[in-house]
Amino acid sequence: MKLWDKGQKKTLGIVEKFEVGKDYIYDREIAKYDVKGTIAHIKMLNKIGILSEDETRKLVLELEHLENKFGKNPPELSIEDEDIHTYIENYLTSTLGDIGKKIHTGRSRNDQVLTAIRLYEKDKISEIFEILDKILKKFIELSKKYKDKPFIGYTHLRQAMPTTVDTWLNSFIEALEDDRKLLRFVYEFIDKNPLGSAAGYGSPIKLDRELTTKLLGFSNYIKNPIYAQNTRGKYEAFLIFTLTTLLGDIAKFSNDIIIFSSDEFEFIKLKDEITTGSSIMPHKKNPDVFELMRAKCKKLIGYLTTTMDIT
Amino acid sequence: MKLWDKGQKKTLGIVEKFEVGKDYIYDREIAKYDVKGTIAHIKMLNKIGILSEDETRKLVLELEHLENKFGKNPPELSIEDEDIHTYIENYLTSTLGDIGKKIHTGRSRNDQVLTAIRLYEKDKISEIFEILDKILKKFIELSKKYKDKPFIGYTHLRQAMPTTVDTWLNSFIEALEDDRKLLRFVYEFIDKNPLGSAAGYGSPIKLDRELTTKLLGFSNYIKNPIYAQNTRGKYEAFLIFTLTTLLGDIAKFSNDIIIFSSDEFEFIKLKDEITTGSSIMPHKKNPDVFELMRAKCKKLIGYLTTTMDIT
Amino acid sequence: MKLWDKGQKKTLGIVEKFEVGKDYIYDREIAKYDVKGTIAHIKMLNKIGILSEDETRKLVLELEHLENKFGKNPPELSIEDEDIHTYIENYLTSTLGDIGKKIHTGRSRNDQVLTAIRLYEKDKISEIFEILDKILKKFIELSKKYKDKPFIGYTHLRQAMPTTVDTWLNSFIEALEDDRKLLRFVYEFIDKNPLGSAAGYGSPIKLDRELTTKLLGFSNYIKNPIYAQNTRGKYEAFLIFTLTTLLGDIAKFSNDIIIFSSDEFEFIKLKDEITTGSSIMPHKKNPDVFELMRAKCKKLIGYLTTTMDIT
Amino acid sequence: MKLWDKGQKKTLGIVEKFEVGKDYIYDREIAKYDVKGTIAHIKMLNKIGILSEDETRKLVLELEHLENKFGKNPPELSIEDEDIHTYIENYLTSTLGDIGKKIHTGRSRNDQVLTAIRLYEKDKISEIFEILDKILKKFIELSKKYKDKPFIGYTHLRQAMPTTVDTWLNSFIEALEDDRKLLRFVYEFIDKNPLGSAAGYGSPIKLDRELTTKLLGFSNYIKNPIYAQNTRGKYEAFLIFTLTTLLGDIAKFSNDIIIFSSDEFEFIKLKDEITTGSSIMPHKKNPDVFELMRAKCKKLIGYLTTTMDIT
Repeated sequence: MKLWDKGQKKTLGIVEKFEVGKDYIYDREIAKYDVKGTIAHIKMLNKIGILSEDETRKLVLELEHLENKFGKNPPELSIEDEDIHTYIENYLTSTLGDIGKKIHTGRSRNDQVLTAIRLYEKDKISEIFEILDKILKKFIELSKKYKDKPFIGYTHLRQAMPTTVDTWLNSFIEALEDDRKLLRFVYEFIDKNPLGSAAGYGSPIKLDRELTTKLLGFSNYIKNPIYAQNTRGKYEAFLIFTLTTLLGDIAKFSNDIIIFSSDEFEFIKLKDEITTGSSIMPHKKNPDVFELMRAKCKKLIGYLTTTMDIT
Repeated sequence: MKLWDKGQKKTLGIVEKFEVGKDYIYDREIAKYDVKGTIAHIKMLNKIGILSEDETRKLVLELEHLENKFGKNPPELSIEDEDIHTYIENYLTSTLGDIGKKIHTGRSRNDQVLTAIRLYEKDKISEIFEILDKILKKFIELSKKYKDKPFIGYTHLRQAMPTTVDTWLNSFIEALEDDRKLLRFVYEFIDKNPLGSAAGYGSPIKLDRELTTKLLGFSNYIKNPIYAQNTRGKYEAFLIFTLTTLLGDIAKFSNDIIIFSSDEFEFIKLKDEITTGSSIMPHKKNPDVFELMRAKCKKLIGYLTTTMDIT
Repeated sequence: MKLWDKGQKKTLGIVEKFEVGKDYIYDREIAKYDVKGTIAHIKMLNKIGILSEDETRKLVLELEHLENKFGKNPPELSIEDEDIHTYIENYLTSTLGDIGKKIHTGRSRNDQVLTAIRLYEKDKISEIFEILDKILKKFIELSKKYKDKPFIGYTHLRQAMPTTVDTWLNSFIEALEDDRKLLRFVYEFIDKNPLGSAAGYGSPIKLDRELTTKLLGFSNYIKNPIYAQNTRGKYEAFLIFTLTTLLGDIAKFSNDIIIFSSDEFEFIKLKDEITTGSSIMPHKKNPDVFELMRAKCKKLIGYLTTTMDIT
Repeated sequence: MKLWDKGQKKTLGIVEKFEVGKDYIYDREIAKYDVKGTIAHIKMLNKIGILSEDETRKLVLELEHLENKFGKNPPELSIEDEDIHTYIENYLTSTLGDIGKKIHTGRSRNDQVLTAIRLYEKDKISEIFEILDKILKKFIELSKKYKDKPFIGYTHLRQAMPTTVDTWLNSFIEALEDDRKLLRFVYEFIDKNPLGSAAGYGSPIKLDRELTTKLLGFSNYIKNPIYAQNTRGKYEAFLIFTLTTLLGDIAKFSNDIIIFSSDEFEFIKLKDEITTGSSIMPHKKNPDVFELMRAKCKKLIGYLTTTMDIT
């Protein structure tokens, strides 16, 4: 049964297929976060007296089993599964019967999905911090290594003033530190729990939003239920913008590398290991890796445009 | 062996993985077109005396076999296959030995890929024409059915002037006919053969570009080899722009439908079959289908931004 | 009196100012086209019997006077004038009294403005054709002059294959010819008369749209009144897209020039006359002109995004 | 004399005109900030021994005179003035002779312009804070006034759940508070002094950057000279993004108002004073103000795309 099934006249197959879109592919990524969100919701329903101790125990046990499983190996979904949320609900109903249906009390698919996405984003941002710190560490090492080594400062791609290699490298360090600050700040927005906002108008049942906030490790929750739903896309735009900025700096670095490692400039020599040859000129050393990094920034600008438009 | 393998020092595994990206997924879509392009190239190499009759016969036989197979069931590629082009070359080398390697004479991966993409786009545009004509036919039917039926003309979402349902419907017909003209015109650009431009500087071998053009069913070929490569992204932007325009008109129609079918306007009643309910309000009739169509236009604007930026 | 004045309660001054925005600045550009459109409208009103011969003669005389004046020296508008349309109407009322008010019969500001804009765009496109043809001519001359002169073909900013200067130049010729074709095609859309569509629902009076089409030199008119208004922004997006494409090719050329004229590449020497020095390094030769041309393309991408979004 | 005049061969008139572009118009806005930046630079040059007490006193006196004048009435610049920076330098040279030329020591036009822009942005952000706080205050008032007043909660533009007017209003308050936080955060980036970075490679003279930072009221200065120049566009993108977000929330509010004040919804009644009539339907009440606010957000998305692209 689809979550938005209308009981009465069936929605047309072609409409269902169009609606589901590629959800069943993307949803693999958020499978475990949806389970986490559901566990917190169940524990909260228990606390406010909607679910009994026994029901709670059974549901949580099954879900912890799923969480474990999804952590290692996210489920392959088919179009028939619709999306991960239906998949999980169907699983619970098939193993526990009618208890499985109760998990939808006081929750809409809207806040359910948004919660899973925010948990996913929090994890991804943590990964990005780790990578960013490694990059920064490397730049700092290089900057020390090439301290005061003379370099040419260009403006308008023309030789302009003497500078040093570490001045050039430090420009990226200061840039990335700015990006890190922005990402840190944006994280605080993402780190607010939307669970409990339901479809944007809350629930007639008095939910304990502070409990789910605590259980899910959010720092705070979005107070207004309408706004909670309106943050969908808005906070994502914050994140995409920050990543575009970050990749913009990586793109600037890549661009410098491409030019400075050309046959004509020859300031920098790229190791064979990070270049590729050409199918008809195998001895060429192409800086594809840097070209691709540059292109990725442009991709994000497109995503940003779309995200800001839709919201 | 990767097409751009440098023989000497190996490219790092992580670099290879980054380079390959998601090519192995997208390439399934263009598999059969790459085979077509390769067959034409081989026949041309035969005509200009690079491949013997026997080599040609063997290669074409194997490739026609692949074309058939891919038409029904495109290959599942893995990261190790790199992309469809390497996959095909590896297949030929494994079945025919050294002859397989000869297909790369006078061709670069650049023009090979571009040719496959243009053939793919031509087929997709034909599909879009079919769909568009069905939509137009439906609008024309509806326009006749509701001829002179009174309707309210809105400006600024305020009742402004009396109009008729068919005037409203005809506005989309004239719009879609414009879009059809633009698509028809853009098709003429896409319908030019880039094969023979190699990596943008042609080939030292005198290729017969008219022959491949004819064999592949292109109307013409792009003369200048540098420009042939520069059309990558440029012609695609033409196409994405046209589709954005087309979806913009569909979005306008969708928007009208969403408003006119609201409880407050009630001009239009949506059948249950094309609406969805809500998980917590099953009797609601949500016009998701129309909302999704509206959103798809925004997605294309993002793609357009990216495409125009990269080129 | 403002065209949209409501007679009753006055619109707040701050609201008026916000509405007027910068219209009074931009409208200088379309002043003469608005007069042209108004003359055609008046002649048509005469033909269908709304205006007498005498009224028509008086109005046309005054307007031809304005057209002449605006052609040489567009009027300085103030916020109080609101926009050029009100300015013209006020002028006619002050010189001819009540006859001046009649020109608004069967016309809305919507189709009035759109007509003036399309006439303006047609003239601007003609100017662009002239410039484009000069550029093409220059490229063709250069291509002949440097026929077969050896040049290095780059891929990934690495020396790849030998080529010739004229091959490089011809790539821009073929590109600009494509752009020219697209502009020619887009012109056909712009060249359709929207006058007579009023506010999108036509007029209760039977207007002679073929007459205004002929008088204004349009090739055709947009049939559906709703669509006529919906083309606002849509056709402009067609035009902006085409110009972005054109400037994209100019940007590619500029980029090549910037790199090839650098101290390191030195293939091309820029004359002093088209470079600028630096305030602190007067002997530097900066290719600002080419950098600015490159930037202008990016500006247009932004305009395109906005235009496609709003419509 | 133009700042980038090369002494030798003159730059062509048409090139100059192209370079100057509309600088002479936009520069009026930053005139007084450029004077401020120049005064700080002079005082610093005095402290490090480049300018004598007497020279400093004379220069500062003239500049304070200009600052006063520009504060009330920014100068009308012509194309010949090139830009405000040249205008000021020419003024000083004409009144003080050769001393006027000394102000360029240790400064490039790059950091000079950037400093003026950042000072300008800081002032503008302060203005935005004031406006934003007024808007927030108004929303809070309205939210109290309509506390618990029943309202319909919509999803998919369909009646979904009961809510209250203050819940609806509070959603904008929480949204605007988020935007305010982001603007506050972005201000910290803008609030860093770029003066002293010269053309991106600093100056051979040891400048006292802490002194200019203090004199100009910046909280800090951008350390790396290359990065200081690279923030041009990057920090501006931060600001435009924030404003787009802010206007996105205003657009959402405007959109609600447009729909809720329609004849069909009728939840909200717009006062005559903030609506406009139509030229052919004077009694209509058009919510143009809200439509224009919605459109302004789209304009900013375009500016953002351009800004992110260029950098």
